[in-house]
Amino acid sequence: MNQYGNSFRISIFGESHGNGVGITIDGCPPGIPFKEEDMHADLLRRKSGKKGTTPRIESDEPEILSGVFNGTTTGAPVAILFRNENTRSGDYSKLVEMPRPGHADLTAMQKYNGYNDYRGGGHFSGRITLGIVAAGVLAKKIMSGISFSSEILEIGGEKEYSEILEKAIREENSLGGIVEVKGTGIPAGLGDPFFYSFESAISHLVFSVPAVKGIEFGAGFQAARMTGSQNNDPIISSQGETSSNNSGGINGGISNGNELVFRVAVKPTASIGKPQTTMNLAKDKLDTLQIGGRHDACITLRTPVIFEACAAIAAADLYLMNKSIN
Amino acid sequence: MNQYGNSFRISIFGESHGNGVGITIDGCPPGIPFKEEDMHADLLRRKSGKKGTTPRIESDEPEILSGVFNGTTTGAPVAILFRNENTRSGDYSKLVEMPRPGHADLTAMQKYNGYNDYRGGGHFSGRITLGIVAAGVLAKKIMSGISFSSEILEIGGEKEYSEILEKAIREENSLGGIVEVKGTGIPAGLGDPFFYSFESAISHLVFSVPAVKGIEFGAGFQAARMTGSQNNDPIISSQGETSSNNSGGINGGISNGNELVFRVAVKPTASIGKPQTTMNLAKDKLDTLQIGGRHDACITLRTPVIFEACAAIAAADLYLMNKSIN
Amino acid sequence: MNQYGNSFRISIFGESHGNGVGITIDGCPPGIPFKEEDMHADLLRRKSGKKGTTPRIESDEPEILSGVFNGTTTGAPVAILFRNENTRSGDYSKLVEMPRPGHADLTAMQKYNGYNDYRGGGHFSGRITLGIVAAGVLAKKIMSGISFSSEILEIGGEKEYSEILEKAIREENSLGGIVEVKGTGIPAGLGDPFFYSFESAISHLVFSVPAVKGIEFGAGFQAARMTGSQNNDPIISSQGETSSNNSGGINGGISNGNELVFRVAVKPTASIGKPQTTMNLAKDKLDTLQIGGRHDACITLRTPVIFEACAAIAAADLYLMNKSIN
Amino acid sequence: MNQYGNSFRISIFGESHGNGVGITIDGCPPGIPFKEEDMHADLLRRKSGKKGTTPRIESDEPEILSGVFNGTTTGAPVAILFRNENTRSGDYSKLVEMPRPGHADLTAMQKYNGYNDYRGGGHFSGRITLGIVAAGVLAKKIMSGISFSSEILEIGGEKEYSEILEKAIREENSLGGIVEVKGTGIPAGLGDPFFYSFESAISHLVFSVPAVKGIEFGAGFQAARMTGSQNNDPIISSQGETSSNNSGGINGGISNGNELVFRVAVKPTASIGKPQTTMNLAKDKLDTLQIGGRHDACITLRTPVIFEACAAIAAADLYLMNKSIN
Repeated sequence: MNQYGNSFRISIFGESHGNGVGITIDGCPPGIPFKEEDMHADLLRRKSGKKGTTPRIESDEPEILSGVFNGTTTGAPVAILFRNENTRSGDYSKLVEMPRPGHADLTAMQKYNGYNDYRGGGHFSGRITLGIVAAGVLAKKIMSGISFSSEILEIGGEKEYSEILEKAIREENSLGGIVEVKGTGIPAGLGDPFFYSFESAISHLVFSVPAVKGIEFGAGFQAARMTGSQNNDPIISSQGETSSNNSGGINGGISNGNELVFRVAVKPTASIGKPQTTMNLAKDKLDTLQIGGRHDACITLRTPVIFEACAAIAAADLYLMNKSIN
Repeated sequence: MNQYGNSFRISIFGESHGNGVGITIDGCPPGIPFKEEDMHADLLRRKSGKKGTTPRIESDEPEILSGVFNGTTTGAPVAILFRNENTRSGDYSKLVEMPRPGHADLTAMQKYNGYNDYRGGGHFSGRITLGIVAAGVLAKKIMSGISFSSEILEIGGEKEYSEILEKAIREENSLGGIVEVKGTGIPAGLGDPFFYSFESAISHLVFSVPAVKGIEFGAGFQAARMTGSQNNDPIISSQGETSSNNSGGINGGISNGNELVFRVAVKPTASIGKPQTTMNLAKDKLDTLQIGGRHDACITLRTPVIFEACAAIAAADLYLMNKSIN
Repeated sequence: MNQYGNSFRISIFGESHGNGVGITIDGCPPGIPFKEEDMHADLLRRKSGKKGTTPRIESDEPEILSGVFNGTTTGAPVAILFRNENTRSGDYSKLVEMPRPGHADLTAMQKYNGYNDYRGGGHFSGRITLGIVAAGVLAKKIMSGISFSSEILEIGGEKEYSEILEKAIREENSLGGIVEVKGTGIPAGLGDPFFYSFESAISHLVFSVPAVKGIEFGAGFQAARMTGSQNNDPIISSQGETSSNNSGGINGGISNGNELVFRVAVKPTASIGKPQTTMNLAKDKLDTLQIGGRHDACITLRTPVIFEACAAIAAADLYLMNKSIN
Repeated sequence: MNQYGNSFRISIFGESHGNGVGITIDGCPPGIPFKEEDMHADLLRRKSGKKGTTPRIESDEPEILSGVFNGTTTGAPVAILFRNENTRSGDYSKLVEMPRPGHADLTAMQKYNGYNDYRGGGHFSGRITLGIVAAGVLAKKIMSGISFSSEILEIGGEKEYSEILEKAIREENSLGGIVEVKGTGIPAGLGDPFFYSFESAISHLVFSVPAVKGIEFGAGFQAARMTGSQNNDPIISSQGETSSNNSGGINGGISNGNELVFRVAVKPTASIGKPQTTMNLAKDKLDTLQIGGRHDACITLRTPVIFEACAAIAAADLYLMNKSIN
């Protein structure tokens, strides 16, 4: 199911080493200013090039194929395409025989009976998130006064991670991390109790991003250790302002107008240069795998803008749904 | 959006103090043995009555309204109804003026312009999860050889929580907890990379259950603190068996045939007897709220079977979707 | 797929001779006055009892199970249940062996591997349309100033059909008919070019009603015989009023604010008492079938209000969808 | 809603005079041979160039952007793009002020608050059906042994229409027509009684094709004039073979394994060169419109392959849905 959304409906496609990747956004209201350059800032934040990210550099230049006329959205579907340019597919052929531990190599093969495009992870590649970032830009434009920010709280368990990151790169290993996302100006009322709670919608999208293994809202797992009198956020205004924010801005699955706060656990990249033991499917025995190719030692570094986009898409969808009942 | 699912499609309804609650399941294959008694065991696990749960006791007797004939499903929608019996709506009227901190009282009012049924939480009540448990029973029957179990890892931060639970009850306070769910016999191949990863589907449903604030799969947040070589689960058989299970049974969003493992953070019940400060909307000033009524001091105690049901529903939906492409 | 709709989402269930039939409506805006009696007039129009309709008389009394509080919708799902009372299932058992020509007996068996509830047509029964009529009542309340009417244009090919109807009853045969539905006050802008044209939405629902075999909008099949200059409706006001209405109120798949007009072809009821030849599946040879039970000699007579309901549901869904983009 | 389908999910985009048009197909099983050339034959049948069709000739060359690897589908979304090449947008600017009678000019403006791309009909253009034809090619490959054919039964009310077509071209007028589609090898069991009857699914898609105003299955409107004993198709084999086919291959909304038969009424093209009276919105008075540009005098001529594609898409979707319950 490569589609998501009830009112802001996205449909994603593409592979890492095919012709390109892209997304179609259906249900976007007409009259919203939108052009290719509007996406540049967010796409740049996702781009590789920094220390700890892959040396594969793509231009990541979006082409708006449809749905925009005279500089604004028309109400028709907005399709956005990113061409792949810098591909080296030779690197990946070995993985068909020796699936990478922690990676989708084997599950993809099992699910698609071996027909999946395995080059660079194919449709499982982090490259597919380009479309999510693009859709996020448009989603943010739908709700006035809304904004998102994010912070990498830790990498490899540390706040000041420069040293362990260099070590991981040196050892051809990888590191995970934790990202916190905040949203302000979120209107109250987004979400449904069953089954599209605001948390449901955000987590649904966030867990589509490769390498995500956990999410918590507000006090999250820590809330499970508090008493009700500690955890309940006192309401201090008729609009619902609270003096603490253990709920992360969501009560009963519905945004309460306070700041949205959630944290995402990103596991270390599965693709590492360091030798690993795995099954050699051709020989039907354990074997040592040493992966070449170009990888991100720490994919976490590129994810904050993607998680913001997930939150924006979830919010835009629920925001437009709310308009239909008001 | 009170519907979920592509192939195993559920549609939920009901309120805590209305005529009843229920669920309709569309897309269930024909020929599955199903009768009211099949639901009793799971419904009993969800039932109140134990120490730390509400004194409101409902019979929770399901009536299969449709979709079953001669003891098996027919392929037509299965509708299941639970009548409400033991309601005392007088207890709740005050909450319209003084919304409970941490509860959906205010967000519901904002979302539905004050038309929501506020009695006992209305459609936001944990009582609505009866339908989820019922659908879970049917979901489990669809996949042969699959089974789920769960464990309360901690309550109020402690493994041996009997004492703090009694204290919380005594002080009319509440406690949260953490629940771990495991699934065995899950077929490999469930889930899609974008946007219905197995984690997306499970988290979508789990975050619909009232009071959930976090979820993690496999090593979860701890994975974010490992290196790739530590976190990657070595593949030791051609079928994809792994020697560790940091992935929680999911790679690239797709089940890998190993044990499914996830943990859920449940916040302490918002409704507590202990006096709290909140806005008095009628007087437009802060006021002290003392809630009567009947509440769960620790709703976590009743949730394990609900989370299992969420996992089963997510799995059944993805399992049936997989059949369509194979 | 027993669900329909993007914003006004209906989920239907039930069988002719089971516990009952019903519908759940999700996405209905809060604050709409709704009570059981509001459905009585439309349900009465659908009711049997007139000459040419089945002697099975049901009370057709709806029970609103959820989603209504203090006399208005709450924004939560509205579930409506009709109990079956007057069932005589013994009449139908023979049809498992000898499928009725023109009926769903055999296709249902093939589709559901023989597990379908065959009593009285089971989930294929016209009785399931009770839920459509009920949802139609609520749909009409969503759009102010909208109203629907309908007319039976012909029965058995004749305008004045009293005589041939009596003849058909006498001969235990059945008759079809053509129904014209009109809608006024339909707001302009309902529908999408691809794939939810207003015609698509209406026809999707109308073809769910048993026995429907054709639909045409405005001049319909006759439009195919005109030239463009004859068929084009001259626009005579800035709001889009036209001086003729060959389009039936829809241009480019979108309502234009003029009167909605469509006609539906209803085939004669398949269940007839008159002896027919069909396969005897038990004996694997042709055999003569004589159907007992209670049937409608002319189901067309009961359908006008159902088609109005289909149009109302289609319109309400598209109307609420439009609000999300405006 | 520019998406359709539960299991074979299509998402369409594009405008007549923008960068291009296309479609994404999600849910296509892996392992199906598919390449650009496979679409050529059907695309050629849709192409203009014949007498009575527009002189705008486009190469209509599809590019498969994703979802195909080593010559077969992968299970990931198949995106197909057609670039626009031969556009002359200057022709259309006047239509903003003077909406064409019978066309979507005014309804599009009303629906999208004037932001719609009006060039060449924008997203309402028949050019968007390229994606439908492309998806139809893939849909047909999913079901082995299935095939579709179609015939133009009449143009302008006549079987031998050469003369009236020349007259219409000469007078810068247009003609409608009726197309009959047949499908053989359709497996029994496709469709659901509520709400995805096979007729519902086909009509939903067919009414998305611009200019369609009516559809009937089997005997269709003529069935409404028969008695049950005339219209019921005698079942003559255990597999459900019938000796007549008034049902058009569908009973109770479900395919019965016999030939699928339906007819579509296509109205005459709204865009005609012949002077017409319409509102001049700029001057707020009636005015004479003479349309330049390039049009199809008889769009019916290009539609047969599109209706076949609609039937194939509907069938493929229901076929894959059926696999999930069997």
